Amino acid sequence: MSDATATDLRMMELALTAADRAASLGEVPIGAVVYRGDEVLAEAHNLRETEADPTAHAEVVALRAAAKCVGRWRLDGCSIAVTLEPCPMCAGALVNARVERLVYGVDDPKMGCVRTLGRLCEEPRFNHRLEVIAGVMAEASVERLRAFFRARR
Amino acid sequence: MSDATATDLRMMELALTAADRAASLGEVPIGAVVYRGDEVLAEAHNLRETEADPTAHAEVVALRAAAKCVGRWRLDGCSIAVTLEPCPMCAGALVNARVERLVYGVDDPKMGCVRTLGRLCEEPRFNHRLEVIAGVMAEASVERLRAFFRARR
Repeated sequence: MSDATATDLRMMELALTAADRAASLGEVPIGAVVYRGDEVLAEAHNLRETEADPTAHAEVVALRAAAKCVGRWRLDGCSIAVTLEPCPMCAGALVNARVERLVYGVDDPKMGCVRTLGRLCEEPRFNHRLEVIAGVMAEASVERLRAFFRARR
Repeated sequence: MSDATATDLRMMELALTAADRAASLGEVPIGAVVYRGDEVLAEAHNLRETEADPTAHAEVVALRAAAKCVGRWRLDGCSIAVTLEPCPMCAGALVNARVERLVYGVDDPKMGCVRTLGRLCEEPRFNHRLEVIAGVMAEASVERLRAFFRARR
């Protein structure tokens, strides 16, 4: 079990800023950043409503942008920081993309499939597994989600 | 447990034709069709290599195109025919898109998460579940996969 590095914390701050951009568009505030070492490959946020795309979660948008950035689908050696625990689609996308490390903020009791309702990123039968660091800046993430849903009630 | 309808079989034939188009591009031959009643909303195939996109599995490409076609991310009342059992990413995408029915061809022992390594489309704790019809025209699907990998050895 490792801890988040200083780089991970910096990337999570960028992911939180991306989540704020989502909220300003009326999207559930979830952000993600793909990075390799200290280099940011992609910053993205949830765009499901804006794009009318059921797959446009922050992680999928970030993975697609990062793959475009490096010119191939394999994201070996990359990490991703996400403000919310990935759902099954996003956890599976991280495995498919061969991402090396997942750093996430708050657990998702409804759809989280990395620790809460499943452990898809560490499944021994899949062809790839990720190192997972959970609970990083979780309070900052959950505050954004609470404020968003409070404002919409 | 229901059987595939005549429409399902016709859609699976279209999915198999899409899989053939994938093979002709050097992509693993997997195809998918999203439909509502008798109406085809999207036909797609695996584009992972061509697009250098780790998320460009047939199902995700088809869901995105179908959502674009109907102008919203919810695909209530839609079915999808896929030649191979969906992986965790694709099974999760079907749940996220609220697809009503999944009709698939051959089981995937490596990454299949609908019946083989998990049951993500029928998970009672998620906010949506699909009706699943497995093994539809499975032999036609597996023949294409075998021919593709044989030719590449």
